[in-house]
Amino acid sequence: MAEIQANNLLSKIASGDGHGEESAYFDGWKAYDKDPFHSSKNPLGVIQMGLAENQLCVDLVQDWVVKNPSASICTPGGVDGFKEMANFQDYHGLPEFRNAVARFMEKVRGDRVNSDPTRIVMSGGATGAHELMAFCLADPGEAFLVPTPYYPGFDRDLRWRTGIQLLPIETLSSNGFKITKAALEEAYNKAMEAGIRVKGVLITNPSNPLGTVLDKDTLVLLLTFINHYQIHLVCDEIYSATVFSDMPNRFTSIAELLEDGEVPCNRNLIHLVYSLSKDMGFPGFRVGIVYSYNDAVVNCARKMSSFGLVSSQTQHLIASMLSDDQFVDKYLSESKKRLATRYKFFTWGLSMVGISSLKSNGGLFLWMDLRRLLQEPTVEAELSLWRVIINEVKLNVSPGSSFHCSEAGWFRFAFANMDDKTVDVALRRIRSFMVKGEEAAAGDKPTVVAKKKKCWQMDLQLRLSARRLEEVMSPHSPLPLSPLVRTRT
Amino acid sequence: MAEIQANNLLSKIASGDGHGEESAYFDGWKAYDKDPFHSSKNPLGVIQMGLAENQLCVDLVQDWVVKNPSASICTPGGVDGFKEMANFQDYHGLPEFRNAVARFMEKVRGDRVNSDPTRIVMSGGATGAHELMAFCLADPGEAFLVPTPYYPGFDRDLRWRTGIQLLPIETLSSNGFKITKAALEEAYNKAMEAGIRVKGVLITNPSNPLGTVLDKDTLVLLLTFINHYQIHLVCDEIYSATVFSDMPNRFTSIAELLEDGEVPCNRNLIHLVYSLSKDMGFPGFRVGIVYSYNDAVVNCARKMSSFGLVSSQTQHLIASMLSDDQFVDKYLSESKKRLATRYKFFTWGLSMVGISSLKSNGGLFLWMDLRRLLQEPTVEAELSLWRVIINEVKLNVSPGSSFHCSEAGWFRFAFANMDDKTVDVALRRIRSFMVKGEEAAAGDKPTVVAKKKKCWQMDLQLRLSARRLEEVMSPHSPLPLSPLVRTRT
Repeated sequence: MAEIQANNLLSKIASGDGHGEESAYFDGWKAYDKDPFHSSKNPLGVIQMGLAENQLCVDLVQDWVVKNPSASICTPGGVDGFKEMANFQDYHGLPEFRNAVARFMEKVRGDRVNSDPTRIVMSGGATGAHELMAFCLADPGEAFLVPTPYYPGFDRDLRWRTGIQLLPIETLSSNGFKITKAALEEAYNKAMEAGIRVKGVLITNPSNPLGTVLDKDTLVLLLTFINHYQIHLVCDEIYSATVFSDMPNRFTSIAELLEDGEVPCNRNLIHLVYSLSKDMGFPGFRVGIVYSYNDAVVNCARKMSSFGLVSSQTQHLIASMLSDDQFVDKYLSESKKRLATRYKFFTWGLSMVGISSLKSNGGLFLWMDLRRLLQEPTVEAELSLWRVIINEVKLNVSPGSSFHCSEAGWFRFAFANMDDKTVDVALRRIRSFMVKGEEAAAGDKPTVVAKKKKCWQMDLQLRLSARRLEEVMSPHSPLPLSPLVRTRT
Repeated sequence: MAEIQANNLLSKIASGDGHGEESAYFDGWKAYDKDPFHSSKNPLGVIQMGLAENQLCVDLVQDWVVKNPSASICTPGGVDGFKEMANFQDYHGLPEFRNAVARFMEKVRGDRVNSDPTRIVMSGGATGAHELMAFCLADPGEAFLVPTPYYPGFDRDLRWRTGIQLLPIETLSSNGFKITKAALEEAYNKAMEAGIRVKGVLITNPSNPLGTVLDKDTLVLLLTFINHYQIHLVCDEIYSATVFSDMPNRFTSIAELLEDGEVPCNRNLIHLVYSLSKDMGFPGFRVGIVYSYNDAVVNCARKMSSFGLVSSQTQHLIASMLSDDQFVDKYLSESKKRLATRYKFFTWGLSMVGISSLKSNGGLFLWMDLRRLLQEPTVEAELSLWRVIINEVKLNVSPGSSFHCSEAGWFRFAFANMDDKTVDVALRRIRSFMVKGEEAAAGDKPTVVAKKKKCWQMDLQLRLSARRLEEVMSPHSPLPLSPLVRTRT
């Protein structure tokens, strides 16, 4: 018997591959980890554009921290609170933390919603929050519907240890990846036919990877749909403060629509996932939040939060920081401004070489349309192009297939996790890649880009000279020629 | 169909009571929460003796913190690290954190083991670590054997969301609650007969609630047993630095025995759970550690750690603090000294009123023998006495039944989560309770204590006068008469 057992010492979860780390999304990270770009120490390394991080306003936070020593239990001004914080283990969280986070959530929702601090439940980042939701709402084998493309981590967060399923709601580029009633019904009916019980719909608003926000009509559609079937709606709004413009749609939280009361809906079905990882740029601090309108879920989620409470040291800091109205207001407005500038600069630079992206107004990334560069519209071709981008252009970007996108040729480029100089280098590499492709096309070299010669020639902007492009793209940081160009010419 | 679904909107986990918050252990906490003792603001309130917290050396930590401003990213000296820390999200953890924790684990194990930093996996406290272990090692329905009495939280941590079972290994007071081969075999065979697959044994060393450490013979027995059946051994050693004496047994980590190699054993079966909540007194910081000798488990646990990573702000602080050898050495020796003093003072005070406890040399609590005060040796009688202690004596202590103890009449009294003055108040309340009982016995009032008159009279020490007791117990903090006595006389 001992021998039989030795063959399966571990659990099925541990023996299986449900974590999904084999996805291309994570492969790209590994490539970056092996050879990370550094402007002086490793200028030929891989630039990390696979990481949706918000590093544009950290200076504001640092200033605040130094000016507010009592926010830390590790300063002479704050150390009197050390003992209380070190020992604090109430899973309700510090009252001042819950109050400050609730108020912050109201602010990033344009003060059009009320957030009740007693509904704030802590979790280990949004990662923990999503798993917690899945454990609360569904049994193994039951399913959530998720519009594609969606964040690859959901497969780990919601499915891995819970045994629930995620079933796609297909969207298409032809209408800007909007969720339609037909697609919702189709996904639901498909599950029913397969004998799978649908327990809810999971949306991300603003969307990762699209960077778009859901318009009001779509939110109404979703509320009506889930209320009709009496299934849950989990709304991941972790990018809500990254919305830098009201065009084409202003950000509307599901909370706003619910509180308006326009659409009749069972409130017990509505749950928000929030976090400070994206909106404040603090992924390391692991501040995840579940905010549910369902009392039983709040109660159960709070008990589950014991598995991923926020460090009291961090609760204390966040409570102080987010209670400072003046700071928060300044941070939010400055952050929008800087994200808008970065977005414009990046999309402009790309348009100069004929690359377009989905029009968006939130998130920390672009959803780039590289379909023209594919040899054929398949996932295989997309991954071939992705390998070239990783290994030759040396940019870690994320292929659409890793987001379960139903169309091949889309890529997510993160743009807020680097400084201006690194953006310059990235844009030059892209330019160089495209120019090389054009030259190869002229000389009939069989490269990926050359094979797409016809498409290229349709794009007049491509004919901009490299010189002009450089002038246009880098007004503020005149770098030498791209290192990639230098080493290859 | 919508109606049918509305009846079970939530998961079975959320609808069930697997969390175990209805246990008396947690009821006591609630009683405390409603009416917490404070020396000046609420002197008649409930004293929290249900909380195994280590507050005796927080002054040393505070001193260190103020002297080491660069350990915090929230000081002018450390703020340069803010950006890196805020953005740090590698689930391997900061290298300096892993190194420092590994070294600390070696120190608290008397430098008789090697801890490999690459095996350090983070989790959300020991709570998260235990769940993580259960997810890695067993499938729903499978079981771990656990010697009783054991920490009530295990029912939540290991069973609730994983669906695994905990089956008791019975121990008895007659041999000091030691684990015997017969009890191990009995528990294993009982499971087999019930068709339950046993996946491992879970031990706590030092024991919570006993405060004892496992002697080497018992560790050898356990290693031999689990190796014979090729099942896992999870060793919770979160109290290892609370061992304040080598008598009656010095603390031996399972790691020490394994590395000695005396007992042949498959290393892949051995896993440690560790934390800084007890040994450093930082439960609020949520630093849990899984340390496994099995590479596949390390790998899987690391992936699971995404659900409960330690805040990078806290990792940074802990890395700096535990890298300071001089501080760590001083802290460990001073902590032992203060715990020993508190233990001696508390047990002495209790012995003065004829209450004895299990001889122990670790933990932050006493395992108190109140069997003589029970009307009959049943759980019901134990809970009756417990209600009197909570509601009349106003001490939140934890009844043995909440620890699944197989004998009625044992109670856990935590003693390291309060200052000396509060210990005085607690001891006076106990004394007053006992004296009242004696008086009632003399007047034949039908109180719990009176009914045990015979037992009392067997204990000569009880006849100490209240005056003498006061002199003996409070040499350092002459308090007025117990408020409980004052208000009732």
